[in-house]
Amino acid sequence: MNVWGNRLKLSIFGESHGRAVGIVVDGLPPGEPIDMGAVELDMARRAPGRDDLSTARREPDTVEILSGLDSEGGTTGAPICGVIRNTDARSSDYGAQLRPGHADWTALMKFGGRADMRGGGHFSGRLTAPLVFAGSMAKQILLRRGVEIYGRVVSVGRVSAGCASPSIEEFRETAGLEFPASAEASDAMKESIREARGAGDSVGGVVEAAVFGLPGGLGEPFFASMESETASLLFSVPAVKGVEFGDGFRLASMRGSEANDPLYVEDGRILARSNHNGGVLGGITNGMPLIVRAAIKPTASIALEQESVDPASMEGTTVRVRGRHDPCIAPRVVPVVEACLALSSLDAMLAARQIRAQERER
Amino acid sequence: MNVWGNRLKLSIFGESHGRAVGIVVDGLPPGEPIDMGAVELDMARRAPGRDDLSTARREPDTVEILSGLDSEGGTTGAPICGVIRNTDARSSDYGAQLRPGHADWTALMKFGGRADMRGGGHFSGRLTAPLVFAGSMAKQILLRRGVEIYGRVVSVGRVSAGCASPSIEEFRETAGLEFPASAEASDAMKESIREARGAGDSVGGVVEAAVFGLPGGLGEPFFASMESETASLLFSVPAVKGVEFGDGFRLASMRGSEANDPLYVEDGRILARSNHNGGVLGGITNGMPLIVRAAIKPTASIALEQESVDPASMEGTTVRVRGRHDPCIAPRVVPVVEACLALSSLDAMLAARQIRAQERER
Amino acid sequence: MNVWGNRLKLSIFGESHGRAVGIVVDGLPPGEPIDMGAVELDMARRAPGRDDLSTARREPDTVEILSGLDSEGGTTGAPICGVIRNTDARSSDYGAQLRPGHADWTALMKFGGRADMRGGGHFSGRLTAPLVFAGSMAKQILLRRGVEIYGRVVSVGRVSAGCASPSIEEFRETAGLEFPASAEASDAMKESIREARGAGDSVGGVVEAAVFGLPGGLGEPFFASMESETASLLFSVPAVKGVEFGDGFRLASMRGSEANDPLYVEDGRILARSNHNGGVLGGITNGMPLIVRAAIKPTASIALEQESVDPASMEGTTVRVRGRHDPCIAPRVVPVVEACLALSSLDAMLAARQIRAQERER
Amino acid sequence: MNVWGNRLKLSIFGESHGRAVGIVVDGLPPGEPIDMGAVELDMARRAPGRDDLSTARREPDTVEILSGLDSEGGTTGAPICGVIRNTDARSSDYGAQLRPGHADWTALMKFGGRADMRGGGHFSGRLTAPLVFAGSMAKQILLRRGVEIYGRVVSVGRVSAGCASPSIEEFRETAGLEFPASAEASDAMKESIREARGAGDSVGGVVEAAVFGLPGGLGEPFFASMESETASLLFSVPAVKGVEFGDGFRLASMRGSEANDPLYVEDGRILARSNHNGGVLGGITNGMPLIVRAAIKPTASIALEQESVDPASMEGTTVRVRGRHDPCIAPRVVPVVEACLALSSLDAMLAARQIRAQERER
Repeated sequence: MNVWGNRLKLSIFGESHGRAVGIVVDGLPPGEPIDMGAVELDMARRAPGRDDLSTARREPDTVEILSGLDSEGGTTGAPICGVIRNTDARSSDYGAQLRPGHADWTALMKFGGRADMRGGGHFSGRLTAPLVFAGSMAKQILLRRGVEIYGRVVSVGRVSAGCASPSIEEFRETAGLEFPASAEASDAMKESIREARGAGDSVGGVVEAAVFGLPGGLGEPFFASMESETASLLFSVPAVKGVEFGDGFRLASMRGSEANDPLYVEDGRILARSNHNGGVLGGITNGMPLIVRAAIKPTASIALEQESVDPASMEGTTVRVRGRHDPCIAPRVVPVVEACLALSSLDAMLAARQIRAQERER
Repeated sequence: MNVWGNRLKLSIFGESHGRAVGIVVDGLPPGEPIDMGAVELDMARRAPGRDDLSTARREPDTVEILSGLDSEGGTTGAPICGVIRNTDARSSDYGAQLRPGHADWTALMKFGGRADMRGGGHFSGRLTAPLVFAGSMAKQILLRRGVEIYGRVVSVGRVSAGCASPSIEEFRETAGLEFPASAEASDAMKESIREARGAGDSVGGVVEAAVFGLPGGLGEPFFASMESETASLLFSVPAVKGVEFGDGFRLASMRGSEANDPLYVEDGRILARSNHNGGVLGGITNGMPLIVRAAIKPTASIALEQESVDPASMEGTTVRVRGRHDPCIAPRVVPVVEACLALSSLDAMLAARQIRAQERER
Repeated sequence: MNVWGNRLKLSIFGESHGRAVGIVVDGLPPGEPIDMGAVELDMARRAPGRDDLSTARREPDTVEILSGLDSEGGTTGAPICGVIRNTDARSSDYGAQLRPGHADWTALMKFGGRADMRGGGHFSGRLTAPLVFAGSMAKQILLRRGVEIYGRVVSVGRVSAGCASPSIEEFRETAGLEFPASAEASDAMKESIREARGAGDSVGGVVEAAVFGLPGGLGEPFFASMESETASLLFSVPAVKGVEFGDGFRLASMRGSEANDPLYVEDGRILARSNHNGGVLGGITNGMPLIVRAAIKPTASIALEQESVDPASMEGTTVRVRGRHDPCIAPRVVPVVEACLALSSLDAMLAARQIRAQERER
Repeated sequence: MNVWGNRLKLSIFGESHGRAVGIVVDGLPPGEPIDMGAVELDMARRAPGRDDLSTARREPDTVEILSGLDSEGGTTGAPICGVIRNTDARSSDYGAQLRPGHADWTALMKFGGRADMRGGGHFSGRLTAPLVFAGSMAKQILLRRGVEIYGRVVSVGRVSAGCASPSIEEFRETAGLEFPASAEASDAMKESIREARGAGDSVGGVVEAAVFGLPGGLGEPFFASMESETASLLFSVPAVKGVEFGDGFRLASMRGSEANDPLYVEDGRILARSNHNGGVLGGITNGMPLIVRAAIKPTASIALEQESVDPASMEGTTVRVRGRHDPCIAPRVVPVVEACLALSSLDAMLAARQIRAQERER
């Protein structure tokens, strides 16, 4: 269903080529100022049409707030509904075809042809816009408590940025860039994207993100581990096909003596000398940075001719996906992954009462 | 919290060295015969003490059914509580130390020293025994509807079984083996485990599992995608640090023209020629096999000396984990991953009414 | 939190004097035509300013659909967001006073003065408008399956309509009336309301509603009984202070031999000769009409002077509630109670697969 | 489904004549000592066979704790599973008949004849034993925070104890009595029960309970109002057919000027001069005592001959319910209603962080 969260409740709605997409966010603490300028910056990082590497569809992606903020822009404690109108949808670009790699086929199975699948409909990547809005508010609330969240592209196609243990300084550096990747790798990444576009094709990538300053003790042993809740949100993002924490799949080839992070004391606090476990042990955060990587599959919409089926005649056909598409969505997914981390971190902090969701009369 | 599921509700409880571990399973359809012999076979696949590659702790792992089955062993429609007593726990093996790579540290942060952490307490891998019990019942119910689930070890340490597209025949072959891996790779895998053990160390691995015969149209676009629900369950399993579907992280380095599975018609059904997307598109199953891989980190308990902290004095110390431990838990995790897939598949089928949870008077 | 439902998910938002109130409804079956004319009729039954017995505030209460309906007005299977703009709010009517009987006091305790309490804010009866919108769609879907829902006023102040066992014909008769009560009692009820208004006071009432044609076998023994789920929704409606099923509190004074409904067979179906249990036994529907009564407290906003406290100075004061208020809201609550019954009935039918929430490719 | 709660999670299981009934309680704060002697006292208040007014079935109702308490009986923070074995079940007393007023009929509709309905099966009042166990732990945790909960019988059949505004002193007085009702009324109530039993019949009653010392600010405006959550739990209790808060249905006949509780200041706190709203305004607690009344229908099992249907032949028949039954269960329901109030109060306090569910490293 369209609802996620424990102490936060997110309820998402909308279709790519309908009137609007939006989200209801309940459970934010009252009295939190929301800087809509900062929200718009995050929206812009996700928005299409930014540069020559992304789709030509341009959407202002302005969020209209229908409820939950007072006249000065502070949270009231009531649910916040944010709506983003669709303005530049060209529905004639789409027919009733089944585009390989897309949800057209499964939407047909699930909704029996009733789904409004123009532009991907409710399955569209456009649904991540309201997620970024919600996550951006969460990031502001977290930042005030010393929790910082950053994401970046660590690989595009076969170009990888290397995998040193990432520091907060490194993340901060790439955070503001139009193409959020390390300086050394970004040219090769961009080149790889341009090549794919030139070939009428697309290419995948990996997004890495981290939460710095997250308190220890968050999460549950069963079934709501910090990893479970975060992965559940990330796997809702269209195109995410893998999620790993800390060294993730590389841990599978390690020995225990390498993978176990040794403990020591500094300034009266227990810390770990390495962070192979990515800030989570037994489903619970340990106060080290939470490190997550998400595998982003190549954009399914490509101009190349592909084998498909016409669902009306149930006969073979070929499709070329027209419309405007990103040859690689990994850069635009960065703020979405940050949003997922912000929402799961804030939910866990609210549950653990690191932040009081609601103030009371004293 | 300790509850998972939409139409199924799982509620898990117990500690490694307490009286028992167990689970309440609600929402199974009434009138389903449960073969307790088949359940015990699955329990035995997960149970410790099977061979020279696993811990010497021996537990019969017999499930006592407290409710929900009738005198002939059929489901009544009421919640099923299954309890597995702990019999061979040696608590003196454990002290109040913080074992690196373990949840001892985070349990201290979360429960303030109140948690019963003997043997890992409520965080122990022993909690997967009730999960296997629940999953085994689910597998039986699914098998009657033509849905088959198999898992196997595809890598141990640096030994990998290769990664051809897996067929149901291949999976069936390894399913019955004591060491569930391909014949070519299993000797090298076992050798890798013995080496780690010989060094007082441990080693990680990757478990792959697949659901064959799963209907299309299961899952939700937001937020309960088939991947979200399955990953959320898998990330509750201690030691799982990564989850991927289909080609997962390898999709990130592909082009769209490789990653998109071409569609064709056979016997009046739409099928895909390849299965890079692992049976899921847009969060919804497409009728192709559901393919999942989970990264299992090396067992945190090792005999080698490790740097740690004494939480009482808050001073540095070293620990060597005594007790009986698996040098590699990947083989024992295979039935656990199968259980997770069975439970998320059954939950999704119940939600989509592929199976009626409860029959009605006609 | 602001979310209700099992197979349906309702997510409500908005404040009385903010921009809008609205709701996201997820889980409606795809392919259901929604007659917006019928929705508007229900909205009008709840809307203020209809006649001389209700508040003078006039709101067109038009629902803007942002998502989930296709161009012909049919459900697509994706979440439906409906928004109702606020147009005629006069905020200057309200100050920062604590009106006795209102949520002003408890909102202050909960949200620490951050809540936007103009006109009752998120606690306002205006939040029932989106509920009526959602319920009206549910009623249409139910009606197509032979399930009819009707409500009426059975008492106002000390004027009671008597309590014969209600028939569907009786309910249908009062359904269309502007003042939905039995012909015999409605004049006395109206007089009672006018008297209260004349005295600057208000008066309470009881609303009775019934679901006809509801299948048996819906609900759960623990904890989601049909009564639990319905009552949980009804007790969210501001001003509802009591809920009873069947003969309700009168059952407490009966003997078992009176209260037990005798069973017999007609046309191959088991039926009950009486319906003291209001269509529910052991939390599960039995196919007899579901009968519910809700106690509605008198409107808290009255023109009479009342003792209160100034929260700024924490000193005693008096308040007279200006603004425009209904002297009795029971008639306007009728469509709200119907909406609650429709939503809990549809949710239970979806859960029991009486209606397929989502169709699949065949 | 069998799960209730937000910050607390209750998962109930068991059948009347199966092996056991029980409950898993997750979310209790760690480090809370549980006095099992006090639990047993509450269990005894609910247990059958106490006196000549209740069923002759005798069950020791001892709770075996399988998990979640440490060796000194303190909570660890992990889920607590409590199991109550069935020992004195006489299944031969029951056949495959449909007893009027019972769930036999609806269980048949829901579970298609698969339910184990001996003694009411999973629908039995015996399922309230685990609820009392859970509630008794919650009461102890609340009492340590100054929150006291008491219940009593306020009417049996046509005998009513009168309805003055109840004080904590009055409640404390009746709390310890074997027949928990006011001294003036209890003889007449007992006489009414004996008369019903003499006639082979049964009689209903009303149970009133109150929470004293509950903080203000608990609950949610939509949809998890304090009344919604409490009523949802109460309506799971077999035989409860009505629930009201404060003056409940009597509020419907009042004027606003009577029903609004005037506010004043005492010792720097805002208080209400009366408590017609029963401690809740707008779904949120106001710090006044929470007052609840539940209508208990007469025991459905009576010795008198009743008209019914044989579901095998689908022909008319008559039944006389043999077995051992309470002529009035209202007195035994008192600790059950207290348990419901304790659980919903504790859940709300945990949600509002009045109590920290889990402690953290400092």
